[in-house]
This record gives sequence, C-alpha cells and structure tokens, in this order.
Amino acid sequence: MTGKAAIIGGGVIGGGWAARFVLNGWDVAVFDPGPDAARKLEAVLDNARRALPGLGDVALPPEGRLTLCESLAEAVVGAAWIQESVPERLDLKHRVYAELAGHVAAGAIVGSSTSGFKPSQLQAGQALAGQIVVAHPFNPVYLLPLVEVVGSPANDAAMIARACDVLRGLGMRPLHIKAEIDAHIADRLLESVWREALWLVRDGIATTEEIDDAIRYGFGLRWAQMGLFETYRIAGGEAGMRHFMAQFGPALAWPWTRLVDVPELTEDLITRIADQSDAQSGAHTIRELERIRDANLVGMMRALAANDWGAGAVQNAHDAAREDAAGLVAHADDLTDPGQPVLTLTRTVPLDWIDYNGHMTEARYLDAFGQATDRLMKMVGCDAAYIASGGSFFTAETHIRHLDEVRAGAPVTVHTRVLAGAGKKMHLWHEMRSGARLLATGEHMLLHVDLATRRASPPPPAIAGPLKRLAEAQAAQPWPEGAGRAVGAPR
Amino acid sequence: MTGKAAIIGGGVIGGGWAARFVLNGWDVAVFDPGPDAARKLEAVLDNARRALPGLGDVALPPEGRLTLCESLAEAVVGAAWIQESVPERLDLKHRVYAELAGHVAAGAIVGSSTSGFKPSQLQAGQALAGQIVVAHPFNPVYLLPLVEVVGSPANDAAMIARACDVLRGLGMRPLHIKAEIDAHIADRLLESVWREALWLVRDGIATTEEIDDAIRYGFGLRWAQMGLFETYRIAGGEAGMRHFMAQFGPALAWPWTRLVDVPELTEDLITRIADQSDAQSGAHTIRELERIRDANLVGMMRALAANDWGAGAVQNAHDAAREDAAGLVAHADDLTDPGQPVLTLTRTVPLDWIDYNGHMTEARYLDAFGQATDRLMKMVGCDAAYIASGGSFFTAETHIRHLDEVRAGAPVTVHTRVLAGAGKKMHLWHEMRSGARLLATGEHMLLHVDLATRRASPPPPAIAGPLKRLAEAQAAQPWPEGAGRAVGAPR
Repeated sequence: MTGKAAIIGGGVIGGGWAARFVLNGWDVAVFDPGPDAARKLEAVLDNARRALPGLGDVALPPEGRLTLCESLAEAVVGAAWIQESVPERLDLKHRVYAELAGHVAAGAIVGSSTSGFKPSQLQAGQALAGQIVVAHPFNPVYLLPLVEVVGSPANDAAMIARACDVLRGLGMRPLHIKAEIDAHIADRLLESVWREALWLVRDGIATTEEIDDAIRYGFGLRWAQMGLFETYRIAGGEAGMRHFMAQFGPALAWPWTRLVDVPELTEDLITRIADQSDAQSGAHTIRELERIRDANLVGMMRALAANDWGAGAVQNAHDAAREDAAGLVAHADDLTDPGQPVLTLTRTVPLDWIDYNGHMTEARYLDAFGQATDRLMKMVGCDAAYIASGGSFFTAETHIRHLDEVRAGAPVTVHTRVLAGAGKKMHLWHEMRSGARLLATGEHMLLHVDLATRRASPPPPAIAGPLKRLAEAQAAQPWPEGAGRAVGAPR
Repeated sequence: MTGKAAIIGGGVIGGGWAARFVLNGWDVAVFDPGPDAARKLEAVLDNARRALPGLGDVALPPEGRLTLCESLAEAVVGAAWIQESVPERLDLKHRVYAELAGHVAAGAIVGSSTSGFKPSQLQAGQALAGQIVVAHPFNPVYLLPLVEVVGSPANDAAMIARACDVLRGLGMRPLHIKAEIDAHIADRLLESVWREALWLVRDGIATTEEIDDAIRYGFGLRWAQMGLFETYRIAGGEAGMRHFMAQFGPALAWPWTRLVDVPELTEDLITRIADQSDAQSGAHTIRELERIRDANLVGMMRALAANDWGAGAVQNAHDAAREDAAGLVAHADDLTDPGQPVLTLTRTVPLDWIDYNGHMTEARYLDAFGQATDRLMKMVGCDAAYIASGGSFFTAETHIRHLDEVRAGAPVTVHTRVLAGAGKKMHLWHEMRSGARLLATGEHMLLHVDLATRRASPPPPAIAGPLKRLAEAQAAQPWPEGAGRAVGAPR
C-alpha cells in the first residue's frame, strides 16, 4: 500500500517520517515554513538513504516523489496520511488541525507525533476529531520501528486498524495503547530515568558519561531485545515471575531511586503481572529464553564490535590483549619458522555464524578466511596505518572447498601458505581446522591496489620485501592438494 | 593475568562469575551449601560455553579448573579474587566476610555482587574492610561487560585499580563509581523504570508485554549503544545539549511519570550537564554521532533479524511482504520464462557489509550468493518445511570472481543459472550486478544431504522434478564465461 503522505513540520521527527514514507514508495509533500526546511530535510534524507534501504534483505520499492510545499493546503491535497510534527504546544497543534479541516479527505488519517498530549486533548473542539490519532515515533524515525498509536473514543476501531496497517507497511511496529495517559508509555519510562539521572548528576554521584556507560554496557543491551518484564522473568528463573516479584518486591520500600511514590504490591497486582508475563513469554521455557537472549546479545555485541563501539569495543580490546598468548605473531619477520604454514586465525565459532542447517554457514567460512587474509596482510606490513596511507590488497578470486561441518562453540584455526607473492599479486592458501579435523580450504588471489585510483599497482618495498621472504621460505613446501582446482573438477 | 578465583554463592550471578573466570583461564573454586549447587552451576556454564568463547575474534585461553568445595575455607585458599554473591542480606554478607578473614591472603580482593549495599556498609566492623569492594555485575554475567566498582575511603586507590585490571582481564568493563549511594547507578535507573512500569500495570494502562514492546522496539535499541545523554545530545542537534535541556526541561514540571520529586534545572546544573556532555561526546560532530548511531542500529537490528526476534522480526515480516512486488517468484514452476537466469536476490548493500576499504567486504559476496542459493533452493521445493523434515542442500565448493566494487546503499541483484541439477548434485551459477554493472560471479556445487546421517543422498521427486525442469529449460543458454575456471587461470 502506497499513496501520498503529507508531512507537517520538517524537523528531525518530521524529516524522519518523510524519509520512511518516501523510501517505502510513497509520494511525500512536506510543509514547513522554516527558512532552513530544505537543508534540514536533505540532511535527514541523506542519513536515511544510507541506513534504511539496506536494513532488510529485500529491495524497497522505487523512491516516491518528495516535494516541499509553500502551503499546508497544497501539501495535504490528495494525502491518505497527514503526519503532524509541529512543536509541542497544544494551541499550535489545534491551529494546524483547524486549517487542515477544509482540505483533508474524509478517509485520510491525521497522525500526531506528540510525545506528551493525549488524543482527546488533540481532538478537543476539532472538526477532524475522528481522524486525528497519536502516532508517536522514536528518533531516528527512519530506523526505529516503534510507533505508539493512541486513540480516544472519538476514533472508531476500523480507523485505528487502518492506521496500524499503514505503519506496518512502512516497516514500523505500531503499538496500540488502549488507554490515554500523559506521555503515553515509552516517554513515561524515559522520563523516570531522565529525572533519576538528573539527580545523580546534580548530587555529584556520576557524570553524564558514567551514567551512559552504566546503561550501554549493561541493561541497555538487554533492553534492545527483551524488555523489562521478560528480562526479569529470566532473572526469576524456573520459579517464575511470582518468585521474582517476591524476591525483589522489598526493594520498592528502599531508597533506590528518588521515585518514592510506589504502588502497593498487592496479591492482586502480583497475580496480574505473573499472568501477563505468562501470556507474553510462557511459550518459551526459561532455558529457551536464556538461549534466545544470549544469541541476541552475542549477535548485537558482534555487530557493535564491527563498528568498534560500546560493548563491541570492549570485546575488541580484550581480543587485542589476547593475540600474543593465542600464538598470533605481529610481523612475518618475527616468525620462528617462516617455512611452515602461518597461524592466521584462532577463534571459536560464534553463535551468529550458525545457519538453519545447524552448522557454520557458508559465508562465515569466507569471513574466517577473510580474517586470516587480513592477519597475513598485517604480518607483511599492510596494516591499518598503511591502508590509511592509500594502499591495500583487494581479493580478486576465491575458491572454497567445504570438507567437513563445524558447530557453534567449536575451536577453529586457520594456517596460511603464501603460494606466490611477487609483483601486484598475492596468492594465498588457507586451511581451516577444528583440532586435527580439516574443515575447509580457501584459495585466494589478491591484488595490491592504489586506493586513490582503485587500480592494481605494485606494493612498496616495506610490503613487497616481507611478502617475498615469506613466499620464498614456504616454497619448499609441497603444492597443496586441491590448489588450482576448478569447481566440480574430479579429485 | 590469571590465577585462582573463589566464588561464594553459586546462583545465577555467582555461576555467571564462575563461568567468566574459568572461560578466561582462571582456576575457580565454588562454595555454595545449597543442595542443587552442582546442577545450577552446570546449567550456567552450559550457556556460557555456548556464548562467550565465540564472542570475540581471538581464542580464549584453555579453560581453568572448576571445583565445587565443601567449605568456604577450602574454596578461598590461594585465591587472588573472592567474589561474594550470597543473598542481599547484610547480616549474611557480614558473616561471610568474618569467616573469610582467617583464610584470605593479604593482597586478595573480595568483590561483592551486591546490587543495593554501599561498600562502607559491607566493610563496617570487618577485619577485611580494606579488601572488600563492590563489584556489581549484570545478568548474564558471562556476556554483559558492565561491572560497577565502588569503594569507600577504607580502600586504597591502588587496590581499586588492581580490581579494575582483573575485571578488564575477564573482558569486562569496570565502571568505577566515585561516590557511595544506595543501589549504585544502574539499579537506580532500573528501579525508576520498574516503579513507573508497576504503576502502568496497576492502573491498567498497559500490560507487561506492551511495556516490553515500548522498550525493545524503540529506546532499548538506542541504549544498547549510546546511553541517555549521548542520545539526547543527538536529539538536540547542532545546537547542542544546552538547547536540548531548554527544549525538554519544561517536561520536568509535567505529570509524565509518578516520579514527582524532581531536581531544579538551575543554570548551574544545565552548565554542568552541557560541559560533561562536551567532554563525553564532543570529539564527534552531531552528524558523525548520527552516522555512528545508525550504523550501530542497522548492525544490531540485522543481528536480531538473523534470530527472527524483536526489531529484527519486524524487519523480516516487512521483507516477506515485499517479495512479490520486488519480483521474487515463490516456485520455479511459476516462472514466466524458466529458460532465463532467475532473479534470486534483489536488495541494497547494508551498512554492516562494508569493510575498512570502504566497499562491500568479500565475505558478504558469499553471504549474498548464499541468500540467492537459499532462494533457488526454496524455488525447487527445498524450503523451511522440507529442511525441518530432514533434508537439505549443503555447499561443497564455491568459486567467486570479484569483478567490480560496490558501496553501501547501492542496489544489487543476483540472477542464477542452474548449470546442472540431477542426482545428488546442484551446480549453480550466480551473477551479481548493481544496475547493469557486473560485480561478481559465484559458481557453487551443492550436494543434497540427509540431515540425520549428514551424508549425500538423492533428493525426493518433489525437489528433483522442479530442479530437473529448471536445469533443462536453461540448458539452451550459452555456458557462462568464467564457469569451470580455477583461481589464477588465465582469462
């Protein structure tokens, strides 16, 4: 389902909405009277184009048409969805809705990005009341799936259902909140943390950085994949949510936060929470939930490691400190026996390398061989500093033979032969083992390139020298069985 | 640095500590008088062995020795680190410390997993006072890096520094909190949210599941990589943290949470926060922070998609709904022209497929070809249901030629030829393009396997039939240039 969307207010939130719609194939008309509107919108769209289309594994439709309009009336004509993201002032929002009334089609939905106001406050006195609904997104709107959808008795159920369908069509996750309350749900939770955090800074207990670290190295990771209650259900263990409540309930009476107006933990409230938790998570045993959680945490932390950020940067530092002890040598000239295949990888198969067949998936063999190649490049002097200076090796060709399976948690090593290393070419032969078991071989032809021209060029002596010495030292080794083979050639 | 660690109390937290230490090469002695101690410990270790060793890219040292001890004295003899994780009762903890006093070496560190007590409370009246420090971890202890380290004036600075070194050696992220306060930092933030969430459930505003969804589809993802203040710094935009405070400060006066005892936003507090935020995040512009955030979010959401969980499951559903419109055909027999190469992948290069050379990294070519292979398997009837019934195709051999570069955000397609499909064998030829530009070719030999025996076996007629028809329909196409080639063979 696509059509035309009108975006009223083109700031970070409005711009994020515009990007979501337009990248999902909707035509989008933006009305924002600010002098800077076009530049701001373009900045959000730049970010969104870089991040959103690649998020999924299937191409999005061709981009819709994006127009900046001179008037609200022009923007909303023919729009099936109008999203209001003007500043959080009720009078301002009311003025926008009143102006919309003459121009909006009968079936169109007017979503408000309000973080604080209840739908009945937005609707009060408005001709469009039945068409106005809270659709509160989270920054960055073009990436985060959550939208809080809140209606009032003025909205009929079919209209709310239609609104949720449109949002799902944008790849979002509408959360229909059945009761009206100031700031809906998520921002109430956020506001609690914000207020507690302000106290901590004010009282000199912690800095903003320490508070952020207390979040992102710990419970923030948990909350990216399970929320508060599902996490605590696991903490309660097999004894369940009721047990957890009994164990941690007393903390409600302790001065653990400045939020001192606490609900009474009645038997009725405990039962309600335990029942809701069963309905939410009861399909999985605690052991299953633990394993789902751990697989999610490993996947997310490894994603952060690829960006050398947060919990991933902590892991990278731990890895770097381990290299020597793990037997990885920093430079080829330091090898005790350069005539032997070189240890270029020693690691454990992580949870995120496993596929639906229950074993390490094919692409991760190349991931491992790629890590081994990177290590060998470093060992001949093609390290991060050299790459930053404008040269690198690119892989031109790869041949992998899968000889045996391997599962998560198994140790794997790669030992590497330099079959040739002269001129622009580096010809490598990787053997991957788990213990003594040969899992796979990888044959790779790499070319040294000038990163400015993106063309092949000979490496400088600081790299050509160590590479040549290593190739010569290994030349006495027999030619590997399987090297130089084509796919399907008889063994 | 390794040595011996003693773990007092072997529950979920103590067991998590035992796993961290033993998997990082420490010998570990556990004392837990509970009847179930061995079983509980084994359960935590099972989980930890599955998840932790693969978290990084370098192998951990050989596992240390794990012993369950009959007495506290036996457990702590020779231990450089003693971690106390007994229930949250001060009298119980004091009893443990008093008993430790006769057996603990002078330089040993006694860490307490306490979530609530201040170090001076733990140390009060204890002979070991100077050796006792709060080392508060987060569940699962074997994966999450955060440890809150809190000392009192009784601890000297060198001892705290030593404690942090040991924790870093375990791959953890010690956060040294300079002031004592009930529940330290993270659990105060958690307790605020917990109390607010209890109100929401009690008042019938939301269920536990709705609250969890409001967290994990939205701000939970943000907090896994940046905390509260860095996220808000971005929200403030180029105008900075001071601007953000001005914009959202008024909400402190609104009934957005039950936490109504709020700090006054004085000029002094605003300046302190703005200055701390500059010190924390000022090395990056807002635009840089946005791009770091987006790359982290994309990476984490794609990790969740691999597990079909949370925000990743939302994306997978969005992908599935797009397949038809994107031109992907469900079954080979539905192809309008089976004589042509089959569209098996149409997607955008995501941010997490890019490497230090600024282009799509080699392993992701095989990832894309693997997705294309999976699609073709599905199209001939080897879908999830068939795989669950006990058969699949495994890749035996792969040959990739990298012909051109591609960058994040670029569209890519894969079209696939079935070069042969008879008996146990399926011989595929993938061509990857961005627009008209040929980026790479992939030649793959797959074997049909019986998942029970893990041995090659002919596929059933429901798969052999469509595969044979497709291979025959495509037989008239010319043999692809480059197929059957070995690495380094002349073109």
